[in-house]
Amino acid sequence: MKNILLIYIEIFITIQTITGQDLDRRIVFPDVKDYKTLKCDFHIHTVFSDGLVWPSIRVDEAVRDGLDAIALTEHIEYQPHLEDIPNPDRNRSYEIAKQAAKAHGLIVVHGTEITRKLPPGHANAIFVTDVNKIHVDDAEASYQAARDQGAFIFWNHPNWMAQQKDGVPVLTDFHKKLINNDLLHGIEVVNDLTFSAEALQLASENGLTAIGTSDIHGLIDYQYALSEGGHRPVMLVFAKERTEAAIKEALFAGRTVSWFKDLLVGNEKTLRVLVDASIQTKNKGYIGDTEILQLELKNISDAIFYLNNISPYTFYDQGEIIVLKPQSSILLKILSTKGDRTSVPLTFSILNAIHGLQQELSINLDLN
Amino acid sequence: MKNILLIYIEIFITIQTITGQDLDRRIVFPDVKDYKTLKCDFHIHTVFSDGLVWPSIRVDEAVRDGLDAIALTEHIEYQPHLEDIPNPDRNRSYEIAKQAAKAHGLIVVHGTEITRKLPPGHANAIFVTDVNKIHVDDAEASYQAARDQGAFIFWNHPNWMAQQKDGVPVLTDFHKKLINNDLLHGIEVVNDLTFSAEALQLASENGLTAIGTSDIHGLIDYQYALSEGGHRPVMLVFAKERTEAAIKEALFAGRTVSWFKDLLVGNEKTLRVLVDASIQTKNKGYIGDTEILQLELKNISDAIFYLNNISPYTFYDQGEIIVLKPQSSILLKILSTKGDRTSVPLTFSILNAIHGLQQELSINLDLN
Amino acid sequence: MKNILLIYIEIFITIQTITGQDLDRRIVFPDVKDYKTLKCDFHIHTVFSDGLVWPSIRVDEAVRDGLDAIALTEHIEYQPHLEDIPNPDRNRSYEIAKQAAKAHGLIVVHGTEITRKLPPGHANAIFVTDVNKIHVDDAEASYQAARDQGAFIFWNHPNWMAQQKDGVPVLTDFHKKLINNDLLHGIEVVNDLTFSAEALQLASENGLTAIGTSDIHGLIDYQYALSEGGHRPVMLVFAKERTEAAIKEALFAGRTVSWFKDLLVGNEKTLRVLVDASIQTKNKGYIGDTEILQLELKNISDAIFYLNNISPYTFYDQGEIIVLKPQSSILLKILSTKGDRTSVPLTFSILNAIHGLQQELSINLDLN
Amino acid sequence: MKNILLIYIEIFITIQTITGQDLDRRIVFPDVKDYKTLKCDFHIHTVFSDGLVWPSIRVDEAVRDGLDAIALTEHIEYQPHLEDIPNPDRNRSYEIAKQAAKAHGLIVVHGTEITRKLPPGHANAIFVTDVNKIHVDDAEASYQAARDQGAFIFWNHPNWMAQQKDGVPVLTDFHKKLINNDLLHGIEVVNDLTFSAEALQLASENGLTAIGTSDIHGLIDYQYALSEGGHRPVMLVFAKERTEAAIKEALFAGRTVSWFKDLLVGNEKTLRVLVDASIQTKNKGYIGDTEILQLELKNISDAIFYLNNISPYTFYDQGEIIVLKPQSSILLKILSTKGDRTSVPLTFSILNAIHGLQQELSINLDLN
Repeated sequence: MKNILLIYIEIFITIQTITGQDLDRRIVFPDVKDYKTLKCDFHIHTVFSDGLVWPSIRVDEAVRDGLDAIALTEHIEYQPHLEDIPNPDRNRSYEIAKQAAKAHGLIVVHGTEITRKLPPGHANAIFVTDVNKIHVDDAEASYQAARDQGAFIFWNHPNWMAQQKDGVPVLTDFHKKLINNDLLHGIEVVNDLTFSAEALQLASENGLTAIGTSDIHGLIDYQYALSEGGHRPVMLVFAKERTEAAIKEALFAGRTVSWFKDLLVGNEKTLRVLVDASIQTKNKGYIGDTEILQLELKNISDAIFYLNNISPYTFYDQGEIIVLKPQSSILLKILSTKGDRTSVPLTFSILNAIHGLQQELSINLDLN
Repeated sequence: MKNILLIYIEIFITIQTITGQDLDRRIVFPDVKDYKTLKCDFHIHTVFSDGLVWPSIRVDEAVRDGLDAIALTEHIEYQPHLEDIPNPDRNRSYEIAKQAAKAHGLIVVHGTEITRKLPPGHANAIFVTDVNKIHVDDAEASYQAARDQGAFIFWNHPNWMAQQKDGVPVLTDFHKKLINNDLLHGIEVVNDLTFSAEALQLASENGLTAIGTSDIHGLIDYQYALSEGGHRPVMLVFAKERTEAAIKEALFAGRTVSWFKDLLVGNEKTLRVLVDASIQTKNKGYIGDTEILQLELKNISDAIFYLNNISPYTFYDQGEIIVLKPQSSILLKILSTKGDRTSVPLTFSILNAIHGLQQELSINLDLN
Repeated sequence: MKNILLIYIEIFITIQTITGQDLDRRIVFPDVKDYKTLKCDFHIHTVFSDGLVWPSIRVDEAVRDGLDAIALTEHIEYQPHLEDIPNPDRNRSYEIAKQAAKAHGLIVVHGTEITRKLPPGHANAIFVTDVNKIHVDDAEASYQAARDQGAFIFWNHPNWMAQQKDGVPVLTDFHKKLINNDLLHGIEVVNDLTFSAEALQLASENGLTAIGTSDIHGLIDYQYALSEGGHRPVMLVFAKERTEAAIKEALFAGRTVSWFKDLLVGNEKTLRVLVDASIQTKNKGYIGDTEILQLELKNISDAIFYLNNISPYTFYDQGEIIVLKPQSSILLKILSTKGDRTSVPLTFSILNAIHGLQQELSINLDLN
Repeated sequence: MKNILLIYIEIFITIQTITGQDLDRRIVFPDVKDYKTLKCDFHIHTVFSDGLVWPSIRVDEAVRDGLDAIALTEHIEYQPHLEDIPNPDRNRSYEIAKQAAKAHGLIVVHGTEITRKLPPGHANAIFVTDVNKIHVDDAEASYQAARDQGAFIFWNHPNWMAQQKDGVPVLTDFHKKLINNDLLHGIEVVNDLTFSAEALQLASENGLTAIGTSDIHGLIDYQYALSEGGHRPVMLVFAKERTEAAIKEALFAGRTVSWFKDLLVGNEKTLRVLVDASIQTKNKGYIGDTEILQLELKNISDAIFYLNNISPYTFYDQGEIIVLKPQSSILLKILSTKGDRTSVPLTFSILNAIHGLQQELSINLDLN
């Protein structure tokens, strides 16, 4: 069976070399040490708030994208289709999706979007049991009602230019109070077509989980230009098993990495765990009788890696930047004279693996 | 006419977005300030030494690649096909190519490869008039005979693992003497499938012109995997006009940049001139009433650019690394609060524009 | 301006040669003699009956596909989303789409689907003014109510295996009565993923207009595998101008061709008009001093043409079947000895241009 | 192992669906009943006559194309490179290729081209032992010298417009004499970019083997536009085993099919054997409780098949022409009412499988 998998991988490498994109849109990341890697999107709209599709389409899109879990998070307070969809029950979207998801094994997490001006702005509450009970006037009371149901709550698009003209999120006293009262657990660092390094910094400094979502209203295929090789934003959650409970535990524990365009965004520890699982190295020995050492790097994930060599070694056929494409391999040929035959320590900065404001992950590659 | 060109460019952007490769294999780089950008390959073999094609095939390949000038540089001393091609006239290869090139306007420079052990190793002499006269026993005498014909002489693949086991070129006293005696003017920093940062450093420190060549023996299409999006190594020469004489002047003046895989290799000044011509910027103003400033970057060259942001600004939908694909545009959305509305200085390191050992070009983008 | 268009066409030919598909999904057919060629889809569902998207998504899809006109045709009687969308007004779908279409110049025709068992089965009434008035118990009365509003009425998927186990449509006395009473004007020969040669035969024998529709319920992109080069079924309507009134006139006059996968389906006259406009011929003269005559065939439509040579001439580099790809040209080299230098009559059967049961269009190509 | 092969095939089907071309240029046809299917090209030039590459490049091209056997067939009498390659030994080309082919298991057949005006025109003699002995003045004597070495001799490009202005081959008395004297055994029906139905007819009427060759002088990749999905002309030889002797036996026995662009050209019997092996059918039963029968057609060859339905059955989602792409499957949904549940005989004309002037292969598909 291993051989078959190898063949698959080799062929897809060939395909991607030529087309530059994955023929199969299912998003693939390897499991990491001790955890399953679950692909999640917990910010999604349908016709039950201001989205433009029936919940079952969201299930179809998620299944095609290979997701493990989604949450439909309709605005409680913003209901532009009210004339045609007057049903006051705010749980309908979840119920329909849940039913549609059954055949596919897709996990549907019950959620909603609490929609207010800044502060506190918009927030998603997921792992709730009855959205109708969260539909109350006072913002904090609304958060509390969600929390009473056991919710994980995260601040949506804190960088949103419609609410924050300079795109720089500001953590107000209101937010700090929410955090202190166990009413705010995460913050979006990726939302739809945007990424906020400042939000990531806030997450790091305030113990919030870094969240990435699509916030899709129209169609995934159009919004993220899938036909041109794009992909939806997706949050990788490192969970003990593939269950809703395990996802919830992982979110509270902060074990996430968001994949947005070419970027991987998370805290330093989760990023490192993901990269360790994604990039496999193999010492291929010296070329003939030369002092040129060959190291194979194999990327078994759908992410690209931009590696910037910051060690004193140079390469026989590369500059300092090494581009390791999705699901592909490269062979580094290292001019090893400055090391010795037993130790050639290489250090790379991964320019697209970000864990804070101007902070990128550094890795040491194991040559043994 | 301008409009037609714009349409062409837009369509090719679309194509490249989707296929990730250029449908038309002709290599395109813009002219630079004060100079024509001529695409050259001055290290090529045919059946007249140890190559495997007739000279006219080399012309065909060069025309398809959109080159301006080539030199066929047969080994004077290494003639494995001698049994079948006993003609002692070492100018035949040039003569046949010259004839074949006429119809295409391709410049064919007369050249040869002087083939010795290290030191001095292999060297190409180009702009010669009669290769037969260079066919002498003593290495230095051979260089002198070429120089007497007005040759520009460069050291081939100084990093070649067959001659230098660690891949690190060493400038011997012999080489220094050649340089002092005006018998060595350039050094290959790119040869076939290899790049040598150390050779580039030697070029910089010893006033040698940095040279990039294919050293092709088989077929260009196979050796550089053109069907998978590859390209032959090519040296851009910045010449006053599109003539052999102007190319010669430019080579002696050191005005070259070599394009190898994703790398642009040259001295700092020529690299900067090329990048200035290749990346066009346009201030697209603030988004609505926000503080988010839009800057369009348009790459009108076939090179990719890996830009690493080293200024204090962040972006609304990008991390620190900006990948500017060949013949394409991107729109940077700059969180500008740290600047003021009249000045938002951005600085990037271009990770794949190399002018020395671990030295990459830095650029400041003009927002006006 | 002509030159720009030519460039566009040439480039897209190149693209299609390589990728085998159109990068731009907009469907392109030329206008024909005396008429505009309008691309229409008059059988579409949304959440307002058993479809899965909001009406504005249908507008978005149609605009991306380059359509000129659509009709949303919700089932009057079949309302599976009634629990959530209880609004009894059957015109809502049309009203929302109409509003969304304004910005794009897309024509939205008011329509509905009258949904009954066989006979008469399902039927669409389009060009209506108030669907609510058509919502009556008796089938014929329903048709009459639609007709009273000026409707054009067509029989949907008469081949539907769910209603007709052998896939062969049967024209019952009920249908004949409807026809005689001016209550049935068209019949679907193409519906979704099916084509019915028998329905086309019925159209021809009973003076019904041949109709082709998508009958889309989910997403166009998924249902017709657009990422693999598929296209939605589309009905070309040959109208005096690009207005709703002109479309209506053309439908009653039977001027349609439906494009389904590789097939063009219509009556012989409309098919011929379309082919005449789509395939341009150019006599390129004899090759040198030979008797081999060159004829360029240029296809300026998105349809492929499978031409089967049924004249006594043979070709220098082709067999009897000539495949003329979308938006591309081929050069026929005709061994002309059997003709004379002024007349070389070629006759082709177009295997994918169908106007009845086992009846394909034949064309004579004009060499002058 | 079978499973791995199946996976390969499935993946390549997917690739071809999307890209419309084979990523791997190796030409693939299945073995047929009782015979190996060997891919051969027995008309090739190098620098040793008027070709433009060294013989080893021909080996490289053939290996990349997945060929089993080639013959380098230099003109004995036409030697434009004589000034540089004066070696009078006409066997050199063969010897060099033979040596280069060893590592790849490619069979190199010894051959040559006897180059005369019409009649008899050009002819290839293959399976010879010493070309120098064939280098005699008299044409017939030259043929006889080749035959004395055991040669299989075929008439090259009898349709060549440079020798035959109307492109129609004429079998002269000279040719008839050659045939009668066992000095002419085959005739090219495919040469380079041309196909001759008339030559095929001559083959059929005169007991000559139908031959297809590239007659390549430049590069295979350029001449047949491989980057745009083209392929070199190739002759399939149905041999008892993969040996030179078996190929020779098969050629004298007339067991060939030539693959040229989209065409398969041969005699009726060999064509049928190839099609039987290439198209696999599978009865997939009736859809649900309907009368619509499903038949899977699976094409395990690199040829496309244009099937024209000439039986009285129609299809639920197809017209009369069925395009079965290379290495892919389609599912026919047959309206079976006219048959009975045990017998639904389908007959197709394969429009691109040609065995004579306006004669195409007809096949009956087995539904059991």
